[in-house]
Amino acid sequence: MDVKILRIDLGGKTYGEERLEVEGPAGGRYLTSWIVREEVPPRCGSLSAENKLVLACGPLAGRGISSAGRLSVGCKSPLTGGIKEANAGGTAADALARLGLSAIVLEGQSPEWVILIIDGKEVSFLPAAPYLDKGNYEVARRLREEFGQEYAFITLGPAGERKLWASGVAVSDIYGRPSRIAARGGVGAVMGSKRVKAILLAAPQGETIRPADPARAMTAKKEFHRIIATSERAKVLAEYGTAETMGLVQALGALPTRNFREGRFEQADKIDGRALYNLIKERGGAGRHTERCMASCLIRCSNAVPGPDGREVVAPLEYETLGLMGSNLGVGDLDAIARWNYYCNDLGVDTIEVGAALGVMAEAGLARFGDVAGLEKIILEIYRGTLVGRLAGMGAAFCGLALGIERVPAVKNQAISAYDPRGVKGTGITYATSPMGADHTAGLTVFAPVDHHASTGQKELSYRMQLSRAAYDALGLCAFLLSATGPYPEKVSALLNAYYGTELGPDYLSQLGARVIALEVAFNREAGLPEAEEMPAFMREEKLGPYDLIWDIPSEELQDFWRDLPAL
Amino acid sequence: MDVKILRIDLGGKTYGEERLEVEGPAGGRYLTSWIVREEVPPRCGSLSAENKLVLACGPLAGRGISSAGRLSVGCKSPLTGGIKEANAGGTAADALARLGLSAIVLEGQSPEWVILIIDGKEVSFLPAAPYLDKGNYEVARRLREEFGQEYAFITLGPAGERKLWASGVAVSDIYGRPSRIAARGGVGAVMGSKRVKAILLAAPQGETIRPADPARAMTAKKEFHRIIATSERAKVLAEYGTAETMGLVQALGALPTRNFREGRFEQADKIDGRALYNLIKERGGAGRHTERCMASCLIRCSNAVPGPDGREVVAPLEYETLGLMGSNLGVGDLDAIARWNYYCNDLGVDTIEVGAALGVMAEAGLARFGDVAGLEKIILEIYRGTLVGRLAGMGAAFCGLALGIERVPAVKNQAISAYDPRGVKGTGITYATSPMGADHTAGLTVFAPVDHHASTGQKELSYRMQLSRAAYDALGLCAFLLSATGPYPEKVSALLNAYYGTELGPDYLSQLGARVIALEVAFNREAGLPEAEEMPAFMREEKLGPYDLIWDIPSEELQDFWRDLPAL
Repeated sequence: MDVKILRIDLGGKTYGEERLEVEGPAGGRYLTSWIVREEVPPRCGSLSAENKLVLACGPLAGRGISSAGRLSVGCKSPLTGGIKEANAGGTAADALARLGLSAIVLEGQSPEWVILIIDGKEVSFLPAAPYLDKGNYEVARRLREEFGQEYAFITLGPAGERKLWASGVAVSDIYGRPSRIAARGGVGAVMGSKRVKAILLAAPQGETIRPADPARAMTAKKEFHRIIATSERAKVLAEYGTAETMGLVQALGALPTRNFREGRFEQADKIDGRALYNLIKERGGAGRHTERCMASCLIRCSNAVPGPDGREVVAPLEYETLGLMGSNLGVGDLDAIARWNYYCNDLGVDTIEVGAALGVMAEAGLARFGDVAGLEKIILEIYRGTLVGRLAGMGAAFCGLALGIERVPAVKNQAISAYDPRGVKGTGITYATSPMGADHTAGLTVFAPVDHHASTGQKELSYRMQLSRAAYDALGLCAFLLSATGPYPEKVSALLNAYYGTELGPDYLSQLGARVIALEVAFNREAGLPEAEEMPAFMREEKLGPYDLIWDIPSEELQDFWRDLPAL
Repeated sequence: MDVKILRIDLGGKTYGEERLEVEGPAGGRYLTSWIVREEVPPRCGSLSAENKLVLACGPLAGRGISSAGRLSVGCKSPLTGGIKEANAGGTAADALARLGLSAIVLEGQSPEWVILIIDGKEVSFLPAAPYLDKGNYEVARRLREEFGQEYAFITLGPAGERKLWASGVAVSDIYGRPSRIAARGGVGAVMGSKRVKAILLAAPQGETIRPADPARAMTAKKEFHRIIATSERAKVLAEYGTAETMGLVQALGALPTRNFREGRFEQADKIDGRALYNLIKERGGAGRHTERCMASCLIRCSNAVPGPDGREVVAPLEYETLGLMGSNLGVGDLDAIARWNYYCNDLGVDTIEVGAALGVMAEAGLARFGDVAGLEKIILEIYRGTLVGRLAGMGAAFCGLALGIERVPAVKNQAISAYDPRGVKGTGITYATSPMGADHTAGLTVFAPVDHHASTGQKELSYRMQLSRAAYDALGLCAFLLSATGPYPEKVSALLNAYYGTELGPDYLSQLGARVIALEVAFNREAGLPEAEEMPAFMREEKLGPYDLIWDIPSEELQDFWRDLPAL
């Protein structure tokens, strides 16, 4: 498959379009990992000019297909030292597709901070000075005022400017909020190392991309949408958002609580999906219990959280944030978590990584679990760039080293998400084996109907989920689709066939997922990283109540985890 | 060659002697690197139970041979992530040899802090609780009082207890001072991870080791000593100590000054070899301008620095400390540097790494260059274990990340020694290519009669010096011998032949050096480290005055640096 990419050299301020031949149809994480593997020296400094930042949409973006507009952001990660892809919803992927592009490759380093405006075939390099050290919300608002609503915005917060390892890349949603964050692995630090404060993508409206077979496309899309519209899980997501997951994880005894010391949080009912729903309903005002982040999404898992005065505090508030900044910090206060989420979005930092870092700080006595004011003070120090603020923005593992705390919930230097691996063993295997480090989005197993405490069968489950997730990421499809369309890979192939004139079978997805991971595993090997990483020692030693769970998957069992990947 | 090692499992509190077959005669760094390569998983956590700490003497230790009693301390380094050997003089290697041992291997982790007493064939595990959080000087004094003068002491300061990456292992000198530090690479942190606060070695006096050929041994030793006694360089070392080197490096414009911003220090004449000599002579008292650290040393490069009241402040004070804690911090105050050296010895931290870290902190505004009180405050915070104190003890590269400073003089995460690579290019190549990271002891070129600013010929020089240094380290010979006996490898072979009944030629040394480095390069490759590392970017960009020097050795030239090493 022939894709068009826009390559921008920031050092020389030159750019040009290129055609790239890749196996396809594929884009997103496949394209970012493909380009990173091809072009980035695996042992280069992640924040050096040799690294590249690749932004890619999936092959179904910009076509009015539900949940098909994730933007993949790929590079070598400063946090893990390995390859990274983080993706976000919002408007950018659709805009990229409508520009006729599959990816933008940012190379080199600009001598001064710039804003890139990508308009048709032209790229402008504007001075970013007036926007520096400003939060994502102010930057997005001012850019909208200056350049107009018709752009999709990709922005970098102050954390990314400072190259903090927990910093992400913000994508504006359909309402203009810069709150869809490609958050994990420090992809924002790489954008910061290139000195790019924002990227504006002209976003011509209307469906301008013609499918290979318009009639088949209409049928395939309709069928795809029908499955989503009738999905039970999608209904739950529309009602309660991802926050609904808290009940399940609490029941499993796997909810990170006070730096992963406990598996159940005594105040979970104050911050779970139902509590959030009720708060939104009771306060009204700007509150929304369901919202889209992408134009055509039928799932609408997003929400908008109002303060006591009815004004919007943050949108959306999601389960991972509730887990890492709530139960993990002993905080049962939705207003506080919503406010912290806003600060983190504005700074452009990963709430998972910062939440885990705050847990390590509490362990070290820099704050107390449950102390909203003390914890908030540290979050606000990220703005000021103090030493403690910087540590919070560098993530949990770095904090642990700085403060002398060994009890750090991280794998490959990346904080564990809101599923304690002792209680969701399959997801633990994902943390240990994913080229992405401890990242649930690489292969979450918690919704599978299995005994998540058992240590058998989890390897196969994690493997399958990692392939599925990688395939969806490579197609720019939202992971939340999996609960609806996951069992029907033929429906996804049908879409691709209609748009690209191919004749792919239902196996295409798992093959694509395996190809993506093969690229990533190869890059990491060349970067000197082990394929399977150890879980933190305390998870093998400390029993997690109430079920007295330990991490008991033998390391040896995971050493050959990726042996069946296709040759490159 | 059959060597005897003592293996101590700290987890199970068991021990036993073993015979090990290695190519020899060799010990020291050869033995530590051999055992680490054989037994330590290259990708294990440096501070995990899987790492081992190996203490080894050379094959000529304990035999009354001048400068043959260096103790090698080897492990996987928490600082560089690669293999590490740091060595120190003092009394421990001779004691080890007289115990009939070539090495002690510390394995696993003790559940509680212990002191090991190695007495003949017995090992006792005593509780270390009363000694915890005490500095090396107090610990050594109290151990001497409790157990007597007849032991050689190896102790761990508070920095090692806290597993700081700049912490070393202290060996007592012949006067009982715990001031011979195997300082680099965080070997102290590894001892700390095993929870060993001190090791006492029974040190039977008198020459108890019979040479294979006593008559030849007497002749060979006499000849070896004659060369040392008539060496011009050895005379200089006896007069001015290593501090004498400052004049040379200042002249080359390669003296680290204010975080490697300048190559000459305007106050160098206040802290150089002559200044130190004069201060010692003028104050008298406990001052000594020349001293031994090992019983039979003829070089006597050590010194004892008195305070204004004539009482000893520290012994010895060496060039690297004067460079990194003096000129590098803009400090031209011998009393301050002597005091800081004492604190660093007492804490058990590397003065190079801490000096470089303080330079980075000054760059970040946490202290000012030249501000003795402000800098001293940070050093004292290492005792208190505050965040800033911990950062100083974690080293320059870690400090840079925590504080957001990119201008960090480090290679493989280890601080550059007191020879700016822009002005001593051969030593720069050593920093880039040595398996040890930026460590001048791995191959110092500054005394070679070449143009140190030129970029040609340096590769060959560094290669040769790295082999020589590795061979001397593997024989437990002090590097300062090289200036005397370096040109006469046949004299060293003659010693080995006399003691071991071998018939080694003069080529043996360079072969041995190559074998040592081959082991280390192999370990690092398996640990995922690149063979040649980049110099910090600022050294390619910023001209170093007064000669406007930049680091101009192309990286590609160093990629195949180790291609001629022997197969393992």
